[in-house]
Amino acid sequence: MIKVDLNSDLGESFGSYKMGNDSSIIRLTSSVNVACGMHAGDPIVMAETVAIANRAGVAVGAHPGYPDLQGFGRRNMALSPEEAKAYVMYQVGALDAFCKAEGIKMQHVKPHGALYNMAAKTPSLALAIAEGVKAINPDLILMGLAGSESIKAAASIGLRTASEVFADRAYEEDGSLRARSKKGAMIHDEEECIARVLRMVKEGKVTAYSGEDIDIQADSICVHGDGEKALIFVHKIRKALTEEGITIAPLYSFL
Amino acid sequence: MIKVDLNSDLGESFGSYKMGNDSSIIRLTSSVNVACGMHAGDPIVMAETVAIANRAGVAVGAHPGYPDLQGFGRRNMALSPEEAKAYVMYQVGALDAFCKAEGIKMQHVKPHGALYNMAAKTPSLALAIAEGVKAINPDLILMGLAGSESIKAAASIGLRTASEVFADRAYEEDGSLRARSKKGAMIHDEEECIARVLRMVKEGKVTAYSGEDIDIQADSICVHGDGEKALIFVHKIRKALTEEGITIAPLYSFL
Amino acid sequence: MIKVDLNSDLGESFGSYKMGNDSSIIRLTSSVNVACGMHAGDPIVMAETVAIANRAGVAVGAHPGYPDLQGFGRRNMALSPEEAKAYVMYQVGALDAFCKAEGIKMQHVKPHGALYNMAAKTPSLALAIAEGVKAINPDLILMGLAGSESIKAAASIGLRTASEVFADRAYEEDGSLRARSKKGAMIHDEEECIARVLRMVKEGKVTAYSGEDIDIQADSICVHGDGEKALIFVHKIRKALTEEGITIAPLYSFL
Amino acid sequence: MIKVDLNSDLGESFGSYKMGNDSSIIRLTSSVNVACGMHAGDPIVMAETVAIANRAGVAVGAHPGYPDLQGFGRRNMALSPEEAKAYVMYQVGALDAFCKAEGIKMQHVKPHGALYNMAAKTPSLALAIAEGVKAINPDLILMGLAGSESIKAAASIGLRTASEVFADRAYEEDGSLRARSKKGAMIHDEEECIARVLRMVKEGKVTAYSGEDIDIQADSICVHGDGEKALIFVHKIRKALTEEGITIAPLYSFL
Repeated sequence: MIKVDLNSDLGESFGSYKMGNDSSIIRLTSSVNVACGMHAGDPIVMAETVAIANRAGVAVGAHPGYPDLQGFGRRNMALSPEEAKAYVMYQVGALDAFCKAEGIKMQHVKPHGALYNMAAKTPSLALAIAEGVKAINPDLILMGLAGSESIKAAASIGLRTASEVFADRAYEEDGSLRARSKKGAMIHDEEECIARVLRMVKEGKVTAYSGEDIDIQADSICVHGDGEKALIFVHKIRKALTEEGITIAPLYSFL
Repeated sequence: MIKVDLNSDLGESFGSYKMGNDSSIIRLTSSVNVACGMHAGDPIVMAETVAIANRAGVAVGAHPGYPDLQGFGRRNMALSPEEAKAYVMYQVGALDAFCKAEGIKMQHVKPHGALYNMAAKTPSLALAIAEGVKAINPDLILMGLAGSESIKAAASIGLRTASEVFADRAYEEDGSLRARSKKGAMIHDEEECIARVLRMVKEGKVTAYSGEDIDIQADSICVHGDGEKALIFVHKIRKALTEEGITIAPLYSFL
Repeated sequence: MIKVDLNSDLGESFGSYKMGNDSSIIRLTSSVNVACGMHAGDPIVMAETVAIANRAGVAVGAHPGYPDLQGFGRRNMALSPEEAKAYVMYQVGALDAFCKAEGIKMQHVKPHGALYNMAAKTPSLALAIAEGVKAINPDLILMGLAGSESIKAAASIGLRTASEVFADRAYEEDGSLRARSKKGAMIHDEEECIARVLRMVKEGKVTAYSGEDIDIQADSICVHGDGEKALIFVHKIRKALTEEGITIAPLYSFL
Repeated sequence: MIKVDLNSDLGESFGSYKMGNDSSIIRLTSSVNVACGMHAGDPIVMAETVAIANRAGVAVGAHPGYPDLQGFGRRNMALSPEEAKAYVMYQVGALDAFCKAEGIKMQHVKPHGALYNMAAKTPSLALAIAEGVKAINPDLILMGLAGSESIKAAASIGLRTASEVFADRAYEEDGSLRARSKKGAMIHDEEECIARVLRMVKEGKVTAYSGEDIDIQADSICVHGDGEKALIFVHKIRKALTEEGITIAPLYSFL
């Protein structure tokens, strides 16, 4: 039986600032990545989000980012590997406090935004993050871009890894995501998105922007809950996966 | 055999800003309270401080404070109990990541500055903090002002408590610290300070500012490493305690 | 001819976090209070908000708050008068940069949230704020709660003052706002709100919660743009004022 | 008569964190660059620093940096030109409030750390900063690395510029600073440093690391006050300049 995880970023509100549609999207996922207070989220929001996830029965992961609330963690910062490691550890630990209070085990760690993207292509940064995660708990799963340095670094030190794929993004021949600034980076046709997802999950293949077929590992699919259209699309993905006999399940159940 | 703990606040540097004399004072303590990034400290400093403490063989506790780096956690903030609980949990969890990486168990939690002082006299705040600590790990010891609401609240929910005393501060008849703004708040004579400490530890008594003898529980003595004079004073306290047959030992060994 | 100002808080978004309905409410005001980056707002948002206000032809004021983004400036902080003065000056200066870039003069300063409320009842804090404002530019108008210490302190050092009134809040006999935690603090009947506003503006009187008529100075009425209902209410206030022959105009035109 | 400015970075303390030796170095400078709260400094420190500078009779400039207190503004951040412009304007405006309160005119703006270095080699960033400065006050002088994009961009929009040189740094043939990571980046011989400074000021020439003589504009020399040795070195520079008949004077007196 083929299994795949659906993950979404949650808990991105901050103080009086509300963001996201957590209660709607959470029921459509099997794992959630919870912001940890550096690029988004705050202790109150974290407590509430972990409690919501626990009630919804989905697996919880930490979603650490750069210490840049104003830039939402999307602006690259020139951190040393030592700094990145410590920042990730700090955030994972902070979220773990709320997991313990809910009596649940943290499942995974998925870096956010610019940290995710930089780690995907920077071996030293990827290794620093993986080492930080392993130092806290070697049972944690490192989620990162399929085929990226993040996955390689985590695997190289013995961490379990979850390769993440995107339904609506084009891939280059080397397996990297086609930059958003380039033509054809986004795939707008929903049917095409769903067909690509199914093929990635079932066959481990995707057609790159160049037209070449490439190998891709699809452990988890990233989904979003911002807006009615996004939610309907997630419903469609779930329906398509289910009809193909694929089970949607949290990472820990099959990795 | 009588035992007492000597504790000091450590890890208060932040980025390029250096504070304290951690490497000198740590060897004179049995427990250290490590700042957790909200009022002082940062992830790099926390990693280094826990590593130093581990090498020195002293017990490690979290030192959470108000989210006010500019005020060093010394300015009161009107947090709701729910906010205070979440902020404490966040900070304790963050520090715990570095304890795990060092392979040590966190021993205690001691709130910092204005949070310490407010909790000492505010039952709802004291209870929120204690509940936050217990939710993470019921084996943690809550360190607070001897005789304060902090100690009462923690004890009321079954946490172990460590009553902290001060060598150079005057006490009121109700066991509270005499406010620094009042005459006679500080005791400047070193011999008198040491005599008071010995009596608190051995007899559980101290003479209040009013002249009245009051009961006081002395599990841990707060010491400071800022400056040569402070360090010499800690040496004197240690010598006096030892000569009286009192063992200086971390809290976990006798609570 | 009677004149009155309508003011609203603007520019409260922060980075990716959106707040408020600035483009809708701004056309209904004569003056706007722009957040300055400590409790809300950021440099990009400030630049945009001042530009929007300039295009809309409304007067611009600074809206400084406590340095507490997480609490949106609504949690009291125990700042010294010297700290409060410096924080207000910093924020007013920062906003002034964007006013200069737009070629407009800043009209006024209105403290935000907990700073507004604390200053209203604390003479030393009120004086510190007023002195900070005057030190930058003695032509600035200090907006504060009608009848409060804020207004008294500003007047005492020669600043022009704008007394602010609220359409939907009950007043105590001493002119202070009835605390939100008390019964009857909010007035829900729109007709009653409008009748009260008209009487405050025309007669300088309002009926306190006790039933007693009290004197009140109404230079500016606070309005909000959060939600369709709030916007419709502002339209009603404007219509009622206009029908009574009262001119809605920015503070500088009549103070 | 040849004139040159000596500048130093001041006001880098933050809250309880003390940094620098402001009162010693200030008397040896003619202009000071005051941190503005994003990478260092806070409103209280800014108020004090501007007051000290006013009493010392030195010219005051703003020293804006990246919003990264933890990294002291030394870690590069991927800001858009629009963000950089707004952040610089915010900081310059904030400092200007304290200049006004002291009754002095701000003389110049010198970006700090990674922002200084990035602007030196990035035309779009350099232009954004220059435009932000000009939008506030076209009389402000932009201080930047001699020969850099910062100077070119500021000059291109009509701002006065101050070209800064370093006594103890090697230059490449293109006029850029030799990277600190490379051999020979620092010049340790004090006599050589002083001889280089004199030649830069008098002849507008310096010998690059390659051995080639290159042109260099020396309007201001950067000096530091951290430690006794640094202070003695500044005394030596001042003595050497004076003996050569060069007048040490603030930028506004000769630009």
